[in-house]
Amino acid sequence: MKKWNKDKEELVSLGRIFSYHSAKAKAPDGSVSGDFDVLHFADWVNIVALTKDDEIILIKQYRVGNDDVTIETPGGAFEMGEDPLDTAKREMLEETGYESKNWEKLTAINPNPAFMTNKLHIFLALDCELTSPQNLDELEDIEVFTCPISELHEMIKADKIDHSLVITALFFAAYKVDALKAFV
Amino acid sequence: MKKWNKDKEELVSLGRIFSYHSAKAKAPDGSVSGDFDVLHFADWVNIVALTKDDEIILIKQYRVGNDDVTIETPGGAFEMGEDPLDTAKREMLEETGYESKNWEKLTAINPNPAFMTNKLHIFLALDCELTSPQNLDELEDIEVFTCPISELHEMIKADKIDHSLVITALFFAAYKVDALKAFV
Repeated sequence: MKKWNKDKEELVSLGRIFSYHSAKAKAPDGSVSGDFDVLHFADWVNIVALTKDDEIILIKQYRVGNDDVTIETPGGAFEMGEDPLDTAKREMLEETGYESKNWEKLTAINPNPAFMTNKLHIFLALDCELTSPQNLDELEDIEVFTCPISELHEMIKADKIDHSLVITALFFAAYKVDALKAFV
Repeated sequence: MKKWNKDKEELVSLGRIFSYHSAKAKAPDGSVSGDFDVLHFADWVNIVALTKDDEIILIKQYRVGNDDVTIETPGGAFEMGEDPLDTAKREMLEETGYESKNWEKLTAINPNPAFMTNKLHIFLALDCELTSPQNLDELEDIEVFTCPISELHEMIKADKIDHSLVITALFFAAYKVDALKAFV
């Protein structure tokens, strides 16, 4: 199957975390064309972070989209010119105070290719140790906790973890960590 | 941890698939408040659809966000007042021509609670049978194919399936279908 031809984008509105564009795309045979919503975001990272005792490091934070507190893996957005691994190390340290000397990049996926242009880079951090206090942005309000991997399954089943990007990160980490494979 | 107080939203821009609002939210103790981007979408469905021979029904379609053809499970957005199961049946029939008499709702998750208000409803459809030709919207260009469940693992490893919502749907289906558990 051939891809369509996206021939121009126009800025509709500049948001805080994205820029909203209208894009025109045309079928390969030229028979049909239409206008589509496109959101440009910075790339994101998500970190499946395990301690030496095989507990997973999770965060609770208020999210305005669902207007509730969610349980997530640590993560965040690239700063200008930042490398994915540096972003992951920075976000984990800022949000949780944990560091690791054992990082592995698992994959980069599309959060939602229907209308979003960015990628989510998923990392596994093993043997994490608490080295610092949190260092949060003014509008971040994050509670850190660890829990045994064996409790993840129940948290997902009970809709306590219900963020698609967190579930996707756990999925890829389960390819690498047997203890996760058994319980996600 | 307490949730913040979201006290008002203002419409910034009306898109084709969302409405973009600016929301004001305040920390529970009133110490900090800020403005956040919020996108209102209709709820979505995603269907893990298996044939009687345990092949999975997948679609290829051009996506303007990543400007490429993606491989996905069938799915789509609620129409006004539509029930999740009716949406799932309609989208599967329109996009693929397949029907099932064996539907199960697996869960509803947050596609991205950081800024999106909607839910993704995930369904499992077993014993699917091809009953009709596709019935696509003018701007839909979708190719249907089936593949053995045993090939899913390689498709994910090779980044051929890299849409977070598709991976999330497969993850939940794997709780129910042993053949999926082995290969996702």
